[in-house]
Amino acid sequence: MQLENYIRDIQGFPKEGILFKDITPLLIDPKARKECLEILVSSLKDKKIDKVIGVESRGFFFGMLIAQELNVGFVPVRKPNKLPYDTISASYELEYGSDTLEIHTDAIRKGDRVLIHDDVLATGGTAKAVCELVEQLGGEIVQFNFLMELSFLNGRDKIMGYDIFAAIKY
Amino acid sequence: MQLENYIRDIQGFPKEGILFKDITPLLIDPKARKECLEILVSSLKDKKIDKVIGVESRGFFFGMLIAQELNVGFVPVRKPNKLPYDTISASYELEYGSDTLEIHTDAIRKGDRVLIHDDVLATGGTAKAVCELVEQLGGEIVQFNFLMELSFLNGRDKIMGYDIFAAIKY
Repeated sequence: MQLENYIRDIQGFPKEGILFKDITPLLIDPKARKECLEILVSSLKDKKIDKVIGVESRGFFFGMLIAQELNVGFVPVRKPNKLPYDTISASYELEYGSDTLEIHTDAIRKGDRVLIHDDVLATGGTAKAVCELVEQLGGEIVQFNFLMELSFLNGRDKIMGYDIFAAIKY
Repeated sequence: MQLENYIRDIQGFPKEGILFKDITPLLIDPKARKECLEILVSSLKDKKIDKVIGVESRGFFFGMLIAQELNVGFVPVRKPNKLPYDTISASYELEYGSDTLEIHTDAIRKGDRVLIHDDVLATGGTAKAVCELVEQLGGEIVQFNFLMELSFLNGRDKIMGYDIFAAIKY
């Protein structure tokens, strides 16, 4: 099965000049979704992960499935003012604009082995911000785990030295 | 296990006078999360569901797990301008403010048997809007499925006549 067949190209979304990778065809197909999950967790054997982070919002989908598959905690990293308890935040630039992310201060404990999942590694700004949040709380990042990597945007440069996995590479 | 023990009350979020039910303690505990999922799907035996809808954003969490558990398609219903393909939309009033929801036009086919999952049934405005979206596309709603129901807000009145399930009732 070619996972790429379940990613739909949308020209000009969210604005002109952007080629958006729509993952909804993958979410709606249980067979492809299951195979995708198997690929995402394939590199995690014996990694002893304590927590899986899913980044709002598209990182919630497979992030949740990975946490369930590994039988470990799931932690949402969210846009500002969405998490109701005490938070810390980190700002970042993204492909189109800039934004801030937050995490609950009690979500990661010192020494927790953390997997960071998001749907796409683009410029790496989001990943770097989540990295800062996790490390500020004393967590150890075991892997950055992505559904897709847009290699031509060189996001890897921003999280150099970490284990980086992507199921689909463009 | 009392699932209520994994829901945290936050006073004054997102604004004064609101008692917010924080589900992140449930997401972070794999045992409680698993038991919660079992409860959510317990009423779905032989229901022959084709698609599970998760409502942005907190409906994505267990919505995705339910779809995976049932081995059926997952469909996100999202806030405006988040879904990249052709959409239809429905507006609604909620406990604090008003909003619009969208669904991809190709997400539900005529005759699809659909489960609608969200984290909370409050005033029922969101549920009613999703109901309109699904039925406009020709889908048949098998169940409204919620993690929590805030009974004192009488949300059931807005979706009377449908099967409604909630794992936790307040």
